[in-house]
Amino acid sequence: MTERPNRLRVQTFFQDLQDSICARLEELDTKAVFVQDEWRHAEGGGGRTRVMETGKVFEKAGVNTSAISGSLSESLAHRLSVKQQRFFATGLSIVVHPYSPMVPAVHANFRYFELEDAGWWFGGGADLTPSYLFEEDAEHFHTVWKLVCDRHDSGSYERFKEWCDEYFFIKHRGERRGIGGIFFDNLTGEFESIFRFVQACGTSFLNAYAPIVDRRRHQPWGEREKNWQLLRRSRYVEFNLIYDQGTIFGLETQGRIESILMYLPPLVRWSYNVTPEPDSHEGRLLEVLKQPREWIRS
Amino acid sequence: MTERPNRLRVQTFFQDLQDSICARLEELDTKAVFVQDEWRHAEGGGGRTRVMETGKVFEKAGVNTSAISGSLSESLAHRLSVKQQRFFATGLSIVVHPYSPMVPAVHANFRYFELEDAGWWFGGGADLTPSYLFEEDAEHFHTVWKLVCDRHDSGSYERFKEWCDEYFFIKHRGERRGIGGIFFDNLTGEFESIFRFVQACGTSFLNAYAPIVDRRRHQPWGEREKNWQLLRRSRYVEFNLIYDQGTIFGLETQGRIESILMYLPPLVRWSYNVTPEPDSHEGRLLEVLKQPREWIRS
Repeated sequence: MTERPNRLRVQTFFQDLQDSICARLEELDTKAVFVQDEWRHAEGGGGRTRVMETGKVFEKAGVNTSAISGSLSESLAHRLSVKQQRFFATGLSIVVHPYSPMVPAVHANFRYFELEDAGWWFGGGADLTPSYLFEEDAEHFHTVWKLVCDRHDSGSYERFKEWCDEYFFIKHRGERRGIGGIFFDNLTGEFESIFRFVQACGTSFLNAYAPIVDRRRHQPWGEREKNWQLLRRSRYVEFNLIYDQGTIFGLETQGRIESILMYLPPLVRWSYNVTPEPDSHEGRLLEVLKQPREWIRS
Repeated sequence: MTERPNRLRVQTFFQDLQDSICARLEELDTKAVFVQDEWRHAEGGGGRTRVMETGKVFEKAGVNTSAISGSLSESLAHRLSVKQQRFFATGLSIVVHPYSPMVPAVHANFRYFELEDAGWWFGGGADLTPSYLFEEDAEHFHTVWKLVCDRHDSGSYERFKEWCDEYFFIKHRGERRGIGGIFFDNLTGEFESIFRFVQACGTSFLNAYAPIVDRRRHQPWGEREKNWQLLRRSRYVEFNLIYDQGTIFGLETQGRIESILMYLPPLVRWSYNVTPEPDSHEGRLLEVLKQPREWIRS
């Protein structure tokens, strides 16, 4: 493959962002630290998996980067509608599962893909998964992403917000995993402009999430709220194991299992046929998961 | 569809067996009882879902029967290599997740399928999922099934045991869900003979499982054993949501979600990169899950 200097710039950006996000999440937690595992991919490249467990605020958090190259499998080439060829992929993934059911879980992923003969593209997004709905949190989260998107391309927030609501749909439940955010894929065109947008997304992640953690971390909760959080986490697992393209891609390409499934919540409950009252806090969350709302006041 | 009296006999057998198994599991538990939900299928028929939760011995148990008829979807007809047509399906499914990590989880399923123009077949099986390996339990469980199989067809235990080890393989972990049992599908031929075999399997379920519950229920355990059980349950979820054909069939045919996913364990933990010592109890279980053993001494 011809030398492409951009891949190194993207990979370096993701690794630097991994460092700064881990440092800030450790500050927010005040107790636990990230443990790093470096791994090598069979065909070339590898990754840095960083996991924090049993923190004060965060029950489990993972911040991973990887940069691998290899040959497209037949099924993957088919899925991308290209011929089999060499590829390069680098990405940053973040998942945070807080201990308190009042503090929402969050996920973000940014990725860059190069094919030997079919160009390059970026994908990514960030989405919030609360167990209890606080409208001001949802508005704050979405507002950060709208500002980032508007600076890049007016109208893109609306497209990427809708894409997010579609992507995180748990078909068999008729509900979404969370209250969304943004999701995009196959972004290509003028490299510098798109890379700037992805950089802006990455560096905005903590602006979108940290204020919500600060706002909710001291909010009281009890057994009922914890049980509901564990139940909501079961829906998270159902989405990730049945529908998530990243998980399916990882399992298909025989990636490092512990890095792929590190995103699953620490403790999860499946109870039979739980149906919250429509006018309860739990019911109000479900309503939004079934029927996504617009969070930006115009 | 022409009237086929056999389907009613099979359905009635499954329902009677559901009654007797529920009654015996309640006796074993001594505290909790099954709660029943009856449901209707959109196209025809329905089911009886029975769930027990937070018992004394059993943290969650489900014993379900269903008998539905409808038209094969295109994808299902394709999977069965037949043309689209009407079908009838009835089955009994049992899953038990005990509270104690010393008492193994168990699963059994027996099913009967009729196509309008392509005959009928039985499928089924039973398998044991311990968190800790007790060789005498594995031997007892497999011996019951070997005796049942031998009466039906000499050599069938060996085939069905191997099929079970293949079926419950969690490919991305390189390990099986449990220590197996028997698994069979597409059994057709002389109806009375095969129905007798399936009846013998069904009525042997408690002989295979109840003595193990009695033997292990008072065995002491602590936090380490409970944690290991919760971790093993995460592998159970991974198998069921990613590979289990029954789950995939249920989600594809838009069955009743709470009845399909009722089999998932009540409380589950995903911890990052847990690797037990090879010579620990936990490591010895893993060894058997990676490399199935023959449990019948010849």
